[in-house]
Formats: sequence, structure tokens, C-alpha cells
Amino acid sequence: MRETLALLFDSAHPSASVETIRRRDLRDDDVALDVWFCGVCASDLHAIEHAHSHDTPLVPGHEMTGRVSAVGPGVSDLRPGDLVAVGNIVDSCGECEECRAGLENYCRHFPTPTYGGTDRRDGTVTCGGWSGEMVARSRFVHRLPAGLDAAAAAPLMCAGVTVWEPLRNYAVGRGSRVGVVGLGGLGHLAIRFAVALGAHVTVFTTSPTKVDAASALGAHDVVVSSDTASMQARGRTLDLVVDTGSGSHDPSPYLDTLRIGATMCVLGIAERIDVSSFSLRWGRHQLTGSGTGSVRSTREMLAFAADHAITAEVELLPASAHEEAQRRLRASDVRWRFVLDLRTLGRDRSS
Amino acid sequence: MRETLALLFDSAHPSASVETIRRRDLRDDDVALDVWFCGVCASDLHAIEHAHSHDTPLVPGHEMTGRVSAVGPGVSDLRPGDLVAVGNIVDSCGECEECRAGLENYCRHFPTPTYGGTDRRDGTVTCGGWSGEMVARSRFVHRLPAGLDAAAAAPLMCAGVTVWEPLRNYAVGRGSRVGVVGLGGLGHLAIRFAVALGAHVTVFTTSPTKVDAASALGAHDVVVSSDTASMQARGRTLDLVVDTGSGSHDPSPYLDTLRIGATMCVLGIAERIDVSSFSLRWGRHQLTGSGTGSVRSTREMLAFAADHAITAEVELLPASAHEEAQRRLRASDVRWRFVLDLRTLGRDRSS
Repeated sequence: MRETLALLFDSAHPSASVETIRRRDLRDDDVALDVWFCGVCASDLHAIEHAHSHDTPLVPGHEMTGRVSAVGPGVSDLRPGDLVAVGNIVDSCGECEECRAGLENYCRHFPTPTYGGTDRRDGTVTCGGWSGEMVARSRFVHRLPAGLDAAAAAPLMCAGVTVWEPLRNYAVGRGSRVGVVGLGGLGHLAIRFAVALGAHVTVFTTSPTKVDAASALGAHDVVVSSDTASMQARGRTLDLVVDTGSGSHDPSPYLDTLRIGATMCVLGIAERIDVSSFSLRWGRHQLTGSGTGSVRSTREMLAFAADHAITAEVELLPASAHEEAQRRLRASDVRWRFVLDLRTLGRDRSS
Repeated sequence: MRETLALLFDSAHPSASVETIRRRDLRDDDVALDVWFCGVCASDLHAIEHAHSHDTPLVPGHEMTGRVSAVGPGVSDLRPGDLVAVGNIVDSCGECEECRAGLENYCRHFPTPTYGGTDRRDGTVTCGGWSGEMVARSRFVHRLPAGLDAAAAAPLMCAGVTVWEPLRNYAVGRGSRVGVVGLGGLGHLAIRFAVALGAHVTVFTTSPTKVDAASALGAHDVVVSSDTASMQARGRTLDLVVDTGSGSHDPSPYLDTLRIGATMCVLGIAERIDVSSFSLRWGRHQLTGSGTGSVRSTREMLAFAADHAITAEVELLPASAHEEAQRRLRASDVRWRFVLDLRTLGRDRSS
């Protein structure tokens, strides 16, 4: 077994402690990487808040980049020294209809999440990227294309691919009209990807203070969603709405901005959605959701990001500052994604 | 002005009175028809329940068949004696993007409903098919194809086209796997159309007593929706679910029966829908709704119905029995659609 440091949350350490954890010895198709950078995602906060109620310790982090340190004997496409990235799934059954169709993210036996899941072979609990080293199957370790900054690329692995999926599934391209609800970690990447795909992008924000930032990110049109007249003026104009808004909110006003038969994809983590059936019927609008990305989609997204020089706008913090990152993310005080520098783990006084 | 009898609901007559109403003199593009048959739809009940709270009298009925009695000078495709059908819209602006695209049912200035709407030219309130004569623009008066029984065809004009739209919009054909939620006026026609289109049809019903009826209508598979194991066994098997269930219910268990990226179309009239976001995300399922049909879709549906000998299963009642029909429809005591015989209006004692 290999040992590494990690930010570990459990009932004894609700605000985390730097602890030594074990990573498995490399299997035939495994890759070990030194984790350099890992993003702080709203779902990490959710997991941390619930860590005390679970028996198993939690190591969050599911959008990471780093450098390969070793590979198993069966791995031919990666070698030590390569820069790589890992997202929020690290395995799937490989045999179901979805896996065979290249949709591991919808594996009918559930993909193995990067943390808090159960390894399919040895039954151990998976631990995420807020740690010094990661071991994962090579299929779920993706080469980081040249030219992408490793810190700013880390959030592509969750925030990025999460918005990329609907943009691609609904064939956004030149001339498409795309709405983006919410400006944060996901929203700012949705703007960048949609603009690079050639779309005309309308951003809906609840915060008048974010209007300039949305424009600076490339949005062609920015609407403060409480402005009913502005909302109505966008009625039936959009081909796709990507809703990155966190928390519970009514999708109906955004459905009304869709053209006939067009789709709104909700990416937030609210458990239930309460929607007006009229807003679905009146224009046969489609409301959908999306999970993380498949292997194929993730690699396609990384290649596109490299081609168009797209990374996240990040605030890089030492690993020891994870509590500050959590606190400010809860308060939406971030432009636009926190990334922890795991190279500092255990080296500075407080972590 | 023309005069005709109608079942009229107002604050003075909450349970209707047979009254003389006026129909307009024929305009250039108008058709007058003797109404023979008109269905009783759940939305009629809804309108009747709210009739006392409106100032304007209500004549319900928006799925009717009858015989042309006269046409305006500009009408060339219909002539007196032709059998015709009218559904739940009788006009639209004709100029908006949707109307120009043949989607009058989504006219951005709202299509004129068959009853309770406002005529676009003279501002009078439209009156529906529970009457002896109807006058409407020829574009919204559809020839009833030969071979369709006029009484049993009446429900095609609302129940029929309402289920036809999603079946066609989602390209149901040979080998498609279609779920139908609810067995009633809409549900039984959804089964018939889907089977005729070549689909494998699974019916979901809350009533174990309806299992045999669903099979008799052609369903290949019938699931009692309270049977969790049976529901789960259908997980990710369907290409489309058409939800005809009335009242408020959770679509999530049906979303789970959809294949990746597939769609559930809700046709009931509940105002709000509360759905699990996990059921949308986990398989990127789409939840949509649908309005009535366009002119093109309505005529296509009628032609298909004639080709495949599809009509509704109806219980034909004299106009005077409309209260019985309402009461039994509220109690779901109907197999599968009540149709009123308007030829009897005012002729029997009680109507």
C-alpha cells in the first residue's frame, strides 16, 4: 500500500484534519498521480456538511490535475511525468448497455464516484483529490492537453464537463442562442464554452452586480432575472437554457424564454423541482438534467478547451485555506472557482 | 345573425340551461355546421366549475363533428353536406413565427380557443360545441375522412390530437417502446395510435381493474404503478412516456422508465409539477408538455385514424344527460369517453 496525506473529514474532525491515508498498490490498469490542484465544488460542501452523519471518513475533491508518478504494467497511453486530470467518476461496470455505448456516467450499476464511493474490486471507500496522491484506473485518468494551465484546468473536470454535456447533447453551434442561468463556477464556463462554440449567449443573473462580469466573460446579453419586462422580452428566443443556479428556484420563467420544443437543462443540486405545467406545455418545452461527463465527452471537452484556450477563472489557495474557500463559496464570494494547491499539503503550519 | 340552441352555463344556471345563442353571419372564409356530436373532456369540467366566477356565459365543448350547412363565398374546400370536425382552437394570428411555421397551436398571440375565447374580428366570446350549430373559420374546420364514425371520431379532436402530437414529435414508429400513463379518454387513444404506429406499448395504471382493458386495447405490457418491483423492472426501457394521468402526481417514477435522453410528455391539467431532479439528471431525461394540435397535425392525425380505423371508444348520451356525463367523468366511471348527441338538443323533455 502507498501512503499519502489528505484533508480528511469525519465525526472527530468535522472541519478536517491532515491525515495519512492509504492508496492501493497499482493494479495492471492503474495510474498514480501526484495531485497538484483540485477545485472546490458546491457538492464538496454538501458532502462535508453530511460527513459527520456517515461512518466512513471523507476526502473530498473531484476536479483535479497533477502529474503521473507511476503506471501499472498494462497502461500504455500514459507514463510518469505526463500531466493528467481526474473528474468525478473513477470507474463503471463496463458491461451494461450504457457503458458499452460510451455513457459510463450513466452506468446502470452506477459509476464509482471519485470520493465516497466503493471501489468495484476491493470494496474500499474511494477518496478524492484533496490529497497528495491519487490512484485510479487509467480509463478515468485523462491526459491534460498541452497549453492548459494545470491549476485553471482543474475545474474543467467537474464544472466544465457538466456544462459541456448539455451544450453538446443539444448541438449548440454557430448561430445557436443559448441562455445561461447563474454566474459562478459552472456558469462562467458555460459562457466561455458556448461563446467558443459560436453561440449567442444570454446570461440570466439574480445579481445586478454581476452584469459587467458576465459581459466581460463574453456574454452578448445579460438579464437581471427579477426584471419581468426584460425576461418577457426574451420570450421564445432561445434554443437551449443551461441552468447553473444553485438552490431551489422555479425554472418556469426561463422555460418561457425557449423557442418551441427547446430544452432547459438544470444542473444544480436541489432535490426537487417545482415547475409550472403551463410553461412546459405552452411551447412544448423540455426540462432536463445532466450528470457528469462520459470518458469520451470529457476528453472531447479537454481538447476543445485547449483549442480555444478555455480554462476556469480561479482563485488559487493553499490547501490549508480550504475552510476559507468553503466559507466564501457558501457566501457566493468567489470569482469564479476556488482551487486548492495540494502541493502545499502538510507543508504549511495550519494544514 | 343566426340562432341556435346551446347548453349554457352562467351564474344563474350553474348546471346549464338550454338557451338560444347567436352565431355570427358567415364571413368570407367561414363554415357553418350542424353539430351532431361533441365529447366531454376533463377541461370542460374545469371550465364549468369556474363558470360562475366569470361574467361571460359558457358553452363548453371542443371536440365535435357534424355536417356543413353553409359556407362563406371564399370557401372552396368544403361544401354543404360534408362531414367535418372542429377541435379546441378556431383561429390564430396567422402572422407570427409560429403561425407561419404551421404551429398555430403555439401562436405567440395565443390561438383563439373554441369556447371562452375572444373572436379576433368582432370581439365576441366564442361558444363551443355543446350547441346545435357552430360557425368557424374554414382553416380550423377539418374534413372528417370517410369511414370514421362521426360520434366515435369526435374525441379525436381533443383527446386524439393531444396524444398524437407527442407520438409524432418524438418520432414514434416501428420498434419504438412507448409508455402510456393513465387509461381514460386520452390514454386509450394513445394506446391505439402508438400500437398502429408500430410501437411496443406499456401501460401504467393505478387501477388493477384496468389491466385487462389495457390489454384489450392493444397494450403489450401493463404495469400497476404502485407495484414498485414492476416499475423498477421497466427502468430505462422506454423511448417515450405519454402521461395522461389527471390530477397532481409525481412524474419521477415514470421518468426512471426512460432510456438515456428520452422524454416524458405530461398532458394532464395539474397546474404545477413537482419532480425529482435526480430523475431528470440520472439519464438526462426530458420532461415536457404539449398543447393541442396544429392544423397540419390535426389533419394528419385524422388521415392516420381513418387509415387505421382508429376512433375513440365512446359512450353516447343524449345532450340532456350532460350532468350524468360530468358526474361519472369526475368519478372516472367512463370507458373511455362520453360523447353528447347534440342532435337531440332541446328535443327531449329534460334538456
